[in-house]
Amino acid sequence: MSDDREAPVKVALLGCGTVGGEVTRTLLEHADELAARIGAPVELAGIAVRRPDKHPELPQHLLTSDAGALVESDVDLVVELIGGIEPVRGWLLTALRKGKSVVTGNKALLAEYGAELSAAANESGADLYYEAAVAGAIPLLRPLRESLAGDRITRVMGIVNGTTNFILSAMDSTGASYGETLDEATRLGYAEADPSADVDGYDAASKAAILASLAFHTRVTAADVHREGISGINSSDIAAARRLGRTVKLLSICERVENEDGSESVSARVHPVMIPRGHQLAGVGGAMNAVYVEAAAAGELMFYGQGAGGAPTASAVLGDLVSAARNRVAGGRGPRESAHAALPVRPMGRTPTRYHISLDVADRPGVLAQIAQVFSVHDVSIAAVRQRDKHSTASLVVVTHSAPDAALRATVDEISKLDVVREVVSVMRVEGEES
Amino acid sequence: MSDDREAPVKVALLGCGTVGGEVTRTLLEHADELAARIGAPVELAGIAVRRPDKHPELPQHLLTSDAGALVESDVDLVVELIGGIEPVRGWLLTALRKGKSVVTGNKALLAEYGAELSAAANESGADLYYEAAVAGAIPLLRPLRESLAGDRITRVMGIVNGTTNFILSAMDSTGASYGETLDEATRLGYAEADPSADVDGYDAASKAAILASLAFHTRVTAADVHREGISGINSSDIAAARRLGRTVKLLSICERVENEDGSESVSARVHPVMIPRGHQLAGVGGAMNAVYVEAAAAGELMFYGQGAGGAPTASAVLGDLVSAARNRVAGGRGPRESAHAALPVRPMGRTPTRYHISLDVADRPGVLAQIAQVFSVHDVSIAAVRQRDKHSTASLVVVTHSAPDAALRATVDEISKLDVVREVVSVMRVEGEES
Repeated sequence: MSDDREAPVKVALLGCGTVGGEVTRTLLEHADELAARIGAPVELAGIAVRRPDKHPELPQHLLTSDAGALVESDVDLVVELIGGIEPVRGWLLTALRKGKSVVTGNKALLAEYGAELSAAANESGADLYYEAAVAGAIPLLRPLRESLAGDRITRVMGIVNGTTNFILSAMDSTGASYGETLDEATRLGYAEADPSADVDGYDAASKAAILASLAFHTRVTAADVHREGISGINSSDIAAARRLGRTVKLLSICERVENEDGSESVSARVHPVMIPRGHQLAGVGGAMNAVYVEAAAAGELMFYGQGAGGAPTASAVLGDLVSAARNRVAGGRGPRESAHAALPVRPMGRTPTRYHISLDVADRPGVLAQIAQVFSVHDVSIAAVRQRDKHSTASLVVVTHSAPDAALRATVDEISKLDVVREVVSVMRVEGEES
Repeated sequence: MSDDREAPVKVALLGCGTVGGEVTRTLLEHADELAARIGAPVELAGIAVRRPDKHPELPQHLLTSDAGALVESDVDLVVELIGGIEPVRGWLLTALRKGKSVVTGNKALLAEYGAELSAAANESGADLYYEAAVAGAIPLLRPLRESLAGDRITRVMGIVNGTTNFILSAMDSTGASYGETLDEATRLGYAEADPSADVDGYDAASKAAILASLAFHTRVTAADVHREGISGINSSDIAAARRLGRTVKLLSICERVENEDGSESVSARVHPVMIPRGHQLAGVGGAMNAVYVEAAAAGELMFYGQGAGGAPTASAVLGDLVSAARNRVAGGRGPRESAHAALPVRPMGRTPTRYHISLDVADRPGVLAQIAQVFSVHDVSIAAVRQRDKHSTASLVVVTHSAPDAALRATVDEISKLDVVREVVSVMRVEGEES
C-alpha cells in the first residue's frame, strides 16, 4: 500500500530507549500503513545512541553515536527522545533552522527554551510538535492548540505525573507512610533511583509551563511555575483528608485570573491538593493521568489515559511524526505557536487559593474566637469549621474561602504561634466543591 | 492586535440558530484575538438565513436568504450550520470544488455523503472540518484523525447522544417510565417535538459512522451501522439492571474485529447496553457525552464534556474555523481523510456481543436444564446464572459469554417459546466486566 510516487520522508531518531524502541518497531513493522496515512513512505535514516554496541536489537546499519552529524545529514524530520537540555537544545535548533521538523517529548527543554525553539521553527517554516511531553498518550496539546483555538480557555488542572499519583494513591489506600510507599514505587519501577524530578514536582512544573503557554497564548517557563512536591505529605495529612471525604493529589493548575484593574494574568502552580472523593480527578488511580480543561464556550472537558510508558508515549510521538510528515508531503505546516496574549504571570503569593487547616488545640472556651480573630486580621474568610474533642485537646478543622496565598500562609504562621494551638496537624490547599 | 499585513479570511455563515448566533458573536466580539491566533483578520462576509426579517439581532447588512449565491461569492471559507441533506449538500460541494474550505457540524450529511465531500475537498485542496458533528465541544475527531494517526485504534465506544442519556439517567434515578421521562425531557428542552432522530438512535448512528470512518480509515455510512433506539426500554429493564449493580446507556460502539482468516472487519452499532455502575461511562449523567477510545499503543483513553448546546458546539466550530483559516494564511492544508484500509463492515448478526437475559420461569426442577440446553444448541456459552424465587414463579437471570449476535437472538427466540418460560422480562446487551 505504500505510495511510491512520493519521495520518502527521511527520519532521524535521537535516543533509543523504551519509547524510541517502540517508535522504531512501528516505523519498521507498520511502514505500509504509515505510508498510506502520510501519502509517502517514511524512511528511518538513522538512530543516534550513545553506545551503538549496546543495541544489538536495532538494525546495525542505522546506528550512529554522532547525533549532531545525523541531524546535519540529509534527513527531513528529527525525532528527539534523549531528554535533558544540552546538547539536545543545540541539535534541535540546528534542525529547525535548516527547516527540518522536530518531534520531541522533552518537557524540560520545552519548559525552558520553548520560545527559542518555537521561534526557530517559525522562521524556517518547520514544524515543532511535542504531544508526548505532557500526559503521555493522552491527546491533550493538539486539542488545546487547535480544537480550542477559537475558544477562551480559563483553566487547565490535572494529574500529569504518574509517579506521584501512584505514591499518593497507595498512601491513601494502605495508610502507609510516604517513605514506605516511595520505596515500593521504586521497587515496582514507578519511581526512579533519584526520584526528585517527580516527587519534588519538577516534572509536573515543566508540564504546567507547557500547558499554560498553549492554553493562554503566553510564554510561561518552568521558573514561572510555583512548585511544591509531595515529600512533605505524611500519613496524618492523608488521614485528615480521608476523615473529610477527601483525598490528596499532586495537581498542576494553570489559570487565567482577573486583576483588579480588569486586565488578566496567568497563574501556574504545582502542589498537593485535597479534593473531594467524588471529584473525577479523585478516582484517577495508580500511574494514570487525567486533565480537566475549562473554556468559556466549551465548558468543562476531561481527558484521561496513560501518562507514561513506552508504547503510550510512542503513540503520541508517532501521531506527531505522521502530522509533520503529512505537512511535508502536502507542502504546508502545522499551526504556529502563538504567545500573542503575553499575559503577566502572577506570583503565588497573590494567587487566590483555599486552605484546609487541621489543628490540635486546647479544649477550653474562647479558643475558636482567638483563632477566628487571626483569620479576620488577615482578611481571610472562613468557609467551614469542624471541632472534635479528644482527651484534653480538641481537633479543629478550618476550611477557608478563596484568599491570596500569602495571606493564607501568614494566617497559618500566626495561628501556629498561639498558645492555645498545640499542633498544626496538616495544612493543605483544597480544590473542588465543599462537601 | 489584528494583523493588517495579511488579507482577511472571508467567511460565509450558512444558518444562524443557537450555534450560529454564538459563532457570529465570537467572530464580531473577539475579532482581534482570533486575528492574532490566525495571523490574519477574519471577516464575516455574509450570513444566510431562511427569513432575514426574523433576525433583528444580527447585523442586517450581512443577511441574505440566498445561501447559494453567498457560497459562490468572494468568500474563502464556508461554515454550515443548517443541517439536513439537501440543499446543503449541493452548496458544500460547490464550495469545496471551488477550493473554499468547509466547516460543518452536519452529521447526517457526513454520515451519508462524507466520501463525496471528502473527495471534493481533496481534489481542490480545500479543508473539510467537522469537529462539531460528534460530541459537541469535546475535542474528539482531531485526536482520532491526527493525534492517534500513528497508532492503531481498536475500539471507540461512547455516549454521543445527550437526549437519550438524559432520559436513561432520569429513568434510572427516578424509576419513572420511558413515556413520562420523555415528556419531561421535551418540557425541559432536551428532546425535540419529534424525538425520533434521538430516541430511535439515528443521531447516534450517524455519529458512529463518522467515528468508525476516522478510527479505522474505512468509509462507513449510517446505513452500515446497526441501530436500536431506547423506546423499547421500560422500567423493568432499568430495575433489572439496577438489581445487578448495572445501569442502561445508549452506546455507539465501533470496533475493529478479526475475521476467522486473520483479516479484519469493522463493526459499528448503536444500541442500549447494560454496564456496571462502576464503569466510567455509567457515571456520565444528564446530557453529557463521553467517549472511550482504545488503541494498540496508547491503551485506553477517555474524553468527556458537553455534547450539545449553543456555546459548546460553537467552540468546536470556531476551533475548526481557526484551523482552516490558519491553513489558508500559511498556504497549507489540514490532513486529508484516508479511507485506505477499506475494511469490510461486519453485519450485526455476525458481530460478537454478550446478552443479559432476565426470565420469569416455572418454579420446578429441570427448568434450568431445559434452558441451558437451548443455549448449548446455539453454541452460546453461559457466563453466569442467578435464580430467585418469587411466589409460584422463579426469576432467572442469565449472562452469556461473547457470541455472534444472531446466535444470541435465536437462543432468546427459542427460549421464549419454552413451556417453562412464563415471560422474557428483559433482554439487553452488556459491556464491561462482570461484577
